[in-house]
Amino acid sequence: MDGFRFSTEVSVRFAETDAQGVAHNAVYLVWYEVARIDYLARFREGYRGLQADGLEALTIETHVRYVAPARFDERLRIHARCSEIRGARFRYDYAIERAGTAIATGWTRHAVVERKTFRPARFPAWLAEAIAQAEAWKL
Amino acid sequence: MDGFRFSTEVSVRFAETDAQGVAHNAVYLVWYEVARIDYLARFREGYRGLQADGLEALTIETHVRYVAPARFDERLRIHARCSEIRGARFRYDYAIERAGTAIATGWTRHAVVERKTFRPARFPAWLAEAIAQAEAWKL
Amino acid sequence: MDGFRFSTEVSVRFAETDAQGVAHNAVYLVWYEVARIDYLARFREGYRGLQADGLEALTIETHVRYVAPARFDERLRIHARCSEIRGARFRYDYAIERAGTAIATGWTRHAVVERKTFRPARFPAWLAEAIAQAEAWKL
Amino acid sequence: MDGFRFSTEVSVRFAETDAQGVAHNAVYLVWYEVARIDYLARFREGYRGLQADGLEALTIETHVRYVAPARFDERLRIHARCSEIRGARFRYDYAIERAGTAIATGWTRHAVVERKTFRPARFPAWLAEAIAQAEAWKL
Repeated sequence: MDGFRFSTEVSVRFAETDAQGVAHNAVYLVWYEVARIDYLARFREGYRGLQADGLEALTIETHVRYVAPARFDERLRIHARCSEIRGARFRYDYAIERAGTAIATGWTRHAVVERKTFRPARFPAWLAEAIAQAEAWKL
Repeated sequence: MDGFRFSTEVSVRFAETDAQGVAHNAVYLVWYEVARIDYLARFREGYRGLQADGLEALTIETHVRYVAPARFDERLRIHARCSEIRGARFRYDYAIERAGTAIATGWTRHAVVERKTFRPARFPAWLAEAIAQAEAWKL
Repeated sequence: MDGFRFSTEVSVRFAETDAQGVAHNAVYLVWYEVARIDYLARFREGYRGLQADGLEALTIETHVRYVAPARFDERLRIHARCSEIRGARFRYDYAIERAGTAIATGWTRHAVVERKTFRPARFPAWLAEAIAQAEAWKL
Repeated sequence: MDGFRFSTEVSVRFAETDAQGVAHNAVYLVWYEVARIDYLARFREGYRGLQADGLEALTIETHVRYVAPARFDERLRIHARCSEIRGARFRYDYAIERAGTAIATGWTRHAVVERKTFRPARFPAWLAEAIAQAEAWKL
């Protein structure tokens, strides 16, 4: 998948299928989240490092395009990249691949907030730098 | 919510919350689906009427904007309207309301397929007419 | 359903079905929880009243017997009763009914804990009394 | 974990947590299922081999004891063993381990049925033999 430097794998769980015999559309957002967590795990303590700073990342927008259905027990590769960080906000792009073919794409937008108040907070510098380097952004 | 002629209610289940103390982002797609099913239930046998015709509706695109978090046990009103039907494809728009305020909006796109082959099939005329009337479309 | 004085209704959501075409086994525990929340809602502020006292109820044991499968869009009645309160612990029994027939039974056990420490805490007297009265227990 | 010859790993997903900050009680049944699928994957085509024979395995009873809560991003090892096969029915036992300690135990019972009719069907001999050997049963 062009432009992605990170990916992680999931298998379609039986509980994730529905009566159409395919993975339910809401599950893709869970897989995107799994990919974000795995993506961040490479930097310090990952998402738990963010929480240790007293922060949470809220999801403020999600988008999924379903190109071909996924079925029980299929092995999927979730490609993810952080494509923008600006103030409190950041964005991820995704492509879900099965055996070399993209079966879904999408993106999500997020806002960093203080854990206790849910007030916007600046994206942590240590994490922004680590991501910029991992994504080879020209800053 | 302007432009909506149909809505249904859900309460935020405890199982739908996450460790941020709010409803998880993937759950909104389940609520959108609940609203579509309730929307269709007014016409013949609803979604099961569609299945009785040998058809299924696949979800091919979803979009959610999360404006304010929803919390456990809150009563939410899901406004839904079918905003387009064209060939095999149709689209729904949504607004989720809590006590008079929109806390999320979104839309989904779908394709009607034959149940056995997953091949595109024309949106049933009986249902298109019922929806056009319910939405007061000028045809 | 014999011995139950309370019940609530759910419809099987499409997202709750699996590729066998029936409601997934894990969903029954969500329905049991929905029934407990609705059961408690009759007393003061229900579960949120318990939380307002600085308490949470943890689930420490669950049991489900699946007698007949449930399918998409079926309307189910969840019968629930609190069958024991002792110290920090309490138990619920359940029967899930479809059109007069029990399609599942089960029970769950819970422990009241302090919200911040997860340490055992006494079941609140105000709620124990309200439940004893609702269940017509001989104390 | 004594008496288990098979185990598989899961990480607690953020979507699997609830507003108590712990993994939701219903999720354990999903993890048990993941373990069963991975357990069977060692034999021919696993569960899909069973489906290829025109069979499905229904879940007819589940039981979970929750000893200590699981939290976001924790790595858990699910120990599973098939403990009985008799006619159409079989049983699995489980222990969920975190860093050497059992945080949950449980068991599930299942019935093999014909995929199309949901009528009871004999547990396939090829799979019973493979399991008996893997579990070192004395037959």
